[in-house]
Parts: sequence; structure tokens; C-alpha cells
Amino acid sequence: MPDHAAAIAAALDAAPDACLVVLTGGLGPTPDDLTAEAVAAWAEVPLQQDAAVAALLRARCEARGRPYGPNMVKQGMLPSGLDALPNPEGTAPAMVGDLRGRTLVLLPGVPSEMRVLWPLVEAWLDAGGRLGPARPVLLRRTTRLSEPVLDRLTAPLLAEFPGCAWSWWLTRWGVDVQALAPAGADAMPAGLAARLDEVLGDRIWAREFVDLPAVVLSALRDAGLTVAAAESCTGGLLGAALTDVPGASDAYRGGIVAYADDIKRDLLDVPAALLREHGAVSGPCARAMADGCRARCGADLALSVTGVAGPGGGSQDKPVGTVWIGLASAAGTFAGRTRFLAHRARNRELAVAVALDALRRHLAAGDDPFAHAEADGWS
Amino acid sequence: MPDHAAAIAAALDAAPDACLVVLTGGLGPTPDDLTAEAVAAWAEVPLQQDAAVAALLRARCEARGRPYGPNMVKQGMLPSGLDALPNPEGTAPAMVGDLRGRTLVLLPGVPSEMRVLWPLVEAWLDAGGRLGPARPVLLRRTTRLSEPVLDRLTAPLLAEFPGCAWSWWLTRWGVDVQALAPAGADAMPAGLAARLDEVLGDRIWAREFVDLPAVVLSALRDAGLTVAAAESCTGGLLGAALTDVPGASDAYRGGIVAYADDIKRDLLDVPAALLREHGAVSGPCARAMADGCRARCGADLALSVTGVAGPGGGSQDKPVGTVWIGLASAAGTFAGRTRFLAHRARNRELAVAVALDALRRHLAAGDDPFAHAEADGWS
Repeated sequence: MPDHAAAIAAALDAAPDACLVVLTGGLGPTPDDLTAEAVAAWAEVPLQQDAAVAALLRARCEARGRPYGPNMVKQGMLPSGLDALPNPEGTAPAMVGDLRGRTLVLLPGVPSEMRVLWPLVEAWLDAGGRLGPARPVLLRRTTRLSEPVLDRLTAPLLAEFPGCAWSWWLTRWGVDVQALAPAGADAMPAGLAARLDEVLGDRIWAREFVDLPAVVLSALRDAGLTVAAAESCTGGLLGAALTDVPGASDAYRGGIVAYADDIKRDLLDVPAALLREHGAVSGPCARAMADGCRARCGADLALSVTGVAGPGGGSQDKPVGTVWIGLASAAGTFAGRTRFLAHRARNRELAVAVALDALRRHLAAGDDPFAHAEADGWS
Repeated sequence: MPDHAAAIAAALDAAPDACLVVLTGGLGPTPDDLTAEAVAAWAEVPLQQDAAVAALLRARCEARGRPYGPNMVKQGMLPSGLDALPNPEGTAPAMVGDLRGRTLVLLPGVPSEMRVLWPLVEAWLDAGGRLGPARPVLLRRTTRLSEPVLDRLTAPLLAEFPGCAWSWWLTRWGVDVQALAPAGADAMPAGLAARLDEVLGDRIWAREFVDLPAVVLSALRDAGLTVAAAESCTGGLLGAALTDVPGASDAYRGGIVAYADDIKRDLLDVPAALLREHGAVSGPCARAMADGCRARCGADLALSVTGVAGPGGGSQDKPVGTVWIGLASAAGTFAGRTRFLAHRARNRELAVAVALDALRRHLAAGDDPFAHAEADGWS
């Protein structure tokens, strides 16, 4: 919805049955930020200053040697009847409360600020008894499966467990599937969890909302092992995914981004003859990169990624989306090929997911994680 | 809005004055994907198969050795009156057309698919004369400025150039500001572009919708130079940002992710004594990392990043958000300190932006890009 007061009021009017309305954006310092003002006008209440927010913003400005000017004062002005949830990441607070018979939640639009404020909103909703009892839910996070394949695998369960509400969605790492217990039920149907696990097998990497790098780092920590990464087509994305997790330094040592082939040779000790004979996008190169990285970085394990992310660089033999993943450990050095069919950014993202998943399965089973890779339906 | 037919119909009814309604999501293979069905019911038109989409999906399934089953057939069924725009990235096509007096655009919800389909939607809107003449617009993409500071800098211009519609928004790289010409005007007011450039100075890195890594790679290519990256707290994010751009291999050679300090020593030749004396988060270390990376990777230039991304690891001297950026070139080796005040993910993202921007300014001016860094208002 546009940043116009009339459009915001129309949207609020358009949801007469909604018990909860969440508005995002338009709480910031600039003149196009007018959500608080529009909500106040819609509810026919005045804007009033929240003393705690004002004090916080004033202190923040002082700490930065900046003026506490009108664009700061503005962000502490709330529609009367709403409370502020201070923003630990930015200036604009969230605003929550009941107006004209519905619960309103106003959130700043910056994604990182929304993300950090949402748990505070949930806690506020919960504390006010606005959430009702939680409906039992089962989640399975998977990888190496496309959405249509996951749909085919789970389709029989819809009939076996009638009344559940099912959802499927793509993630950065693969596809998630979730089942809500039938309305009124106070537990999931017996046997559903076991059937999901049977159908999805080791493509499941989590049963709760954690991310794949956190799962892998935690398994490494439990095993007392460290990992390093040698990246070509992902250019650092694998290392970035691992170090996105606070405390990654316990288990992640670093790596080498060998985008140019002579860096594969000079910094990862991939023999020049191997590169000439097999090319950089090959099983032998993925294995040599993993071995070289493991030795150079002094890690217990090393992953490698080398492929054709696209849009250019493909050939008959090695079409765009061809990616080799390597894994070196004390147990041996393994490599597997995957073929993604998406665009550059998604191919790179999926390569990271497959690499992390290979490490996850190797840590669990100790064997060649690529043995069955080609049999999996992907993308 | 939830994936319920009634909610979708209510939302469509709630927009009686809208000339264009965009719906995202719910076009996929799983049973919770019911947007096409809900729109058909709302418009009281049948669903009918689009032969071209069906042929495309059938060919796609054959290429993957998968069955062309009901969940594929479903994705080729369109509300009568809408046309399909085939999806180059996935299975679900976009659906566009006019129903019940308004233009509808149905897009798959997967962000990467939405992104690739949107230009096709725009072309379709434009070809049908649905877009009207473009309003003149001025864009400035900046970095090293927070939104409140940008607001203060641009505030005088709102009065100087009345009638323009202004917007400001956060990006991965900093803050953008945009002005639309006054309604009915066929050009931007004279002098506005020059005033914006004067007020924002070298914080401007683009005047159109390109990303910072693409701007930097293009400047490197023009100068015939290559770059490498030595990363600690960003863990590969800088290399990932550069290699997100197709064709990055012309100018980006690779790098070393030195997350552990002994990798800084062994692979980047940072002297152990320097690490002991100054610590890893220091100007001397940033300079040594850049020098070591430039030599090891055989690049004309090297960037380095070393800091405390948070949430842990901060100290009195080096609080969370302290990041040193280094730059080594034939002209010398430079380093600058920044202090970000956001959370881990955003601190890392901003470190990448500052590093790329330092390189951009060094390529333009040839001098120490950190000379004025502390004077800039940031985050």
C-alpha cells in the first residue's frame, strides 16, 4: 500500500473483521513516513509523545553527536492508545495497542528491524491474552527436494491424516513442510510425525525453525571438529552463510575463495595438469580443492564448491547450473555433482545448501555423502 | 493475507478503486496454492488450461524424468480472461489480464521468481497502454549516511523545489533518495540534480538502479585492474557480493577468509608480533591483511575487513560494531575505522558496503579513501 494517509485509512477500513492488523513501514524520520499520523487520524485520536522513547532517542543522538531534531521528535510521537516497543536496532519504535475494536501492530519497514521487533510483538500479544492457545504443529525442513517432488511425497499423508492444515514453502535451503493439527485437536494425530520422517528420510535437516548453517556448526561443535571452505562459483557465500551464525569461530576456521584458476593452483595446490585435463568444474578439481583447503587451513574437514552459476560460462558438457561439491575429512575425500536449473543467485544459494547438507550427513553417518545424490529430485 | 479463497476474494473486493491489483504467491503445485482458483471464483469465470504453459511444463518434467502429474497440470490452469507469462525460473507462470473492471497481476511468491517475472509484467502493462507516461524522476544512491542524516541534508531541498514527491529508503548499501517531478511537469525542476549532488557529494555512488558491486567491478574493468579480498568478520560476504554480479571474473580474482587468527598469519602473512601487539581488529592488521592478500592473490588491489560483528566479542576499546577496512594498491596501503550500531547481519552488510565504497572512491580519486571517513554520519 502506498505511503498515503488515505490509502492507509482505506486499508484499515477494509479489514472490518480482522482482529489483528499489522502495518509495516512509514515510522521513520523522513516526511514520507506518515503511518503513525495516518493511524491517529483514522482512529480520531491525537498523536502524543512517548516519554521513554523520546529519552531513548535523545540519548542515542547524544551518543552520536547528532542533533535531536524534529525528525527524531517525530519518531517518538504515538497515536494515543498505542504503546511503544523500543527498537534495539534503529530509531523508530514498534507501536502496539487496541484502537476502534481491533489490535494494531505498527512495525518499522526495515527488514532487520522488523525481525528483531517481532518477538517483542509476539510477547506483547501473548501477555495480553491476544494469541489464544497454540495449535499443535509439525515442521520438517528439507533440502535436495523441489516443491513438486515434496508435494508428491507428502500427498498420500493428506488422506491418511484428514483434518490437518498443510503448508509447503521454498526456503533458502530447500523446501519446508508444515502440518497443523485438526481444529480443536490438542495434539498432532498419532503416527503423522513418523510417516513424515519415513517419507522424507535424510532430506530432513531440522524439525524446528533453525537454519542449516547453525545445525551444521552445532554438529561440528558436538564432534569437536573444525571446517574450512574452498569456494569458486559461490565466491564466499558458503563462508558468509556459516559466519552469519554468532559464535561460528568455534568450528569454522576460514577458507580460500579461488575464483581464478591460478588461485586454485597457487593457494589450494590443485595441480595444473589436473586443471588442464579435467577443467575447474569437475570431480577431480572439487576433491583437490577440498584436500588443499583442509591442509592449508589446518581444519578437520573442508568443503569445496566449483561450478557454472550462470548466466554465461555453460557448455554442452557442463551446462549452466552444473556444480561439483567436494568434502575432505579424515575418512576420505568425496565429491558429487548437482545440476541446478535456476538463475545465478539461486544456483549459488542452492550450492551452499547442498554443500552444508553434505557435511551434515557426513557428520551423522561418516560415509560418502554424495553416494545417492543423483537419485534425489532437485529444482 | 492467508491462503484462503474467502480472504483473497475479500481483499479483491476491498480495493474497489484500484486500477491495478497485484497478488503474490499461491500459484505453485501444493494444495495450499489456490490463488488462481480463488480469483476465478471471485470473477465468476472458469479455470481453463493454457496450452503453451502446459506444453512448457510437460517438457520441463520430461527433461527431469519426472511425471507430468496433477500438481503440474494445475499450474497451467488460468482464470479465463487472464494470460500467462511463462516463468523462466520455476513452474508457476505469472497471470495477467483485466477482470471485473480492474487489471490483475498474479505472481508466484518465490522472491527470485517474482524478480525475474516483474520486468515481463511491466512490459505487458506498458504494451497494453496501462502504465501512462512515465513521471520524470531523479535517484541518488548513497552510502556512509544514515536515514536521519540524509533527511537533514535533503530537508532544505523540499522547500527549494516545491511540488516534488520525495522518498527515502534504506538499502543493503546505505540510503537512497528519490524525487518525482511535480504532477503534470514533463521534466525535473532545473537545478535540483545539481543541488542534490552538491549536498550529498561523494556519498553518491549511483544515479540509477545498479548495485554497488556492479559499479565497482565496472570501474575496475574500465581501469584494467583486478581486486582480491581478505575477510575476517564478513566471512566471505564481500567476495559473495562481488561474485553475485555475472562476469565478475574479469576483475575479481578471489580471496582469503581469515576467520581464525592463525590463518591471518599463515595465509595472509600478518606478522604474529603485529597480531599480539595490536590485535586482529586494528588498523595495522587491516593494512597487513590487504598487503598480504594483494601479494598472495596476485591482484592489483586488495580490500580487507576485520572487526567485531557482534553480538559477542566486544570490549571497552573495541565495542561491537567496530570494523577496520583496509585497501592496498600500487599507490599505497590505507585503513579506516568505522563503528556500526546495528546487529550482526547488518553490521556485516554495512562493512561490505564501506569496503566497496572505499575501493570505488580510490579508483576515482587515487588517494586515501579513509581520510574523511570518521567525519561521515553513519548508522
